[in-house]
Amino acid sequence: MSKILMGPKTLIYPMPTLLVGANVDGKPNFMAVAWGGIANGDPPMISVAIRPQRYTHRGITQNLTFSVNVPSTGLIREVDYCGIVSGSEVNKVEVCQFNVLYGKLGNAPLIEQCPINLECKVEHILELGSHSLIVGRVEETHFSESCLTDGKPDVNKIKPFVFTADPARQYQAFGEVMGRAFSIGRELKAKE
Amino acid sequence: MSKILMGPKTLIYPMPTLLVGANVDGKPNFMAVAWGGIANGDPPMISVAIRPQRYTHRGITQNLTFSVNVPSTGLIREVDYCGIVSGSEVNKVEVCQFNVLYGKLGNAPLIEQCPINLECKVEHILELGSHSLIVGRVEETHFSESCLTDGKPDVNKIKPFVFTADPARQYQAFGEVMGRAFSIGRELKAKE
Repeated sequence: MSKILMGPKTLIYPMPTLLVGANVDGKPNFMAVAWGGIANGDPPMISVAIRPQRYTHRGITQNLTFSVNVPSTGLIREVDYCGIVSGSEVNKVEVCQFNVLYGKLGNAPLIEQCPINLECKVEHILELGSHSLIVGRVEETHFSESCLTDGKPDVNKIKPFVFTADPARQYQAFGEVMGRAFSIGRELKAKE
Repeated sequence: MSKILMGPKTLIYPMPTLLVGANVDGKPNFMAVAWGGIANGDPPMISVAIRPQRYTHRGITQNLTFSVNVPSTGLIREVDYCGIVSGSEVNKVEVCQFNVLYGKLGNAPLIEQCPINLECKVEHILELGSHSLIVGRVEETHFSESCLTDGKPDVNKIKPFVFTADPARQYQAFGEVMGRAFSIGRELKAKE
């Protein structure tokens, strides 16, 4: 098996697709974010990487709150749109016809149509170069009742999707179940 | 559409599945990590959340280097195994039959069988509670030639997968292509 060098700037990597929201000058705005991940378990925290020039970034630093909304595949057009245009030029909430809710924090806008909404309080901001790595503490999670099965979150109803970077530049649904986590690896215990 | 509160500790979220590697006391070890994401574009950085008690964490703080290896679906057993057992008790490299390579940094172990390998130098460590958020600068990316099509990375050959958390606790392949990124959203421009 032979390897080639791609240089450090090739960030090929499985990425989520999220809508990060903030109130900017008192009005809700959302941007598409693929550069994020869970940052801590207890207390629960999440990180998102956002360029300081972005309109949403301004809202996050104004309020020190933001939301992370996990969209379903049915919202792909809206998600992509929120990644193409700036809230400084258009009212994305209107164009996308998002129903905006507020929860515990009062000023982190949540998208009703997204099955999962996290309300976050800014805990750290690391200036890393092109992007600010914003670490938020998850204060509350909202979940659409229609995506539950027997009272539990059902990934087949949530229908999250991933972003596949260059050169594919596409959104892909979660696909075939390949194995049970914390289980299928036990087969290797016989080789210990 | 009605919403329910899940509490802050429900980290439901699309997550990658990765093998993070480090030399611990001079010997290569790998752990499964789902809590990570891209942290910066220029210079390229990546973040991973790891409990300080973990064996791999010891190696990362010893060398201030680590690797991020993106596995293919064919390695699901090995990935799950690396998340179940500790390198303090078993030699995971032997059990999983990983071919270990070293690149530019010299002490960040790479798994030849994984199509993508990032060599990282620790830039920041944030102690957030249960986990350390380790931000690494990507110094080099290695890519398996067999996963290229016309000289470019091909997601259908890389075959990355995601981790679906509770209650599903499963690994899922990348599935159906739902749309072109930076493109399908343009359909909404007519509504501006």
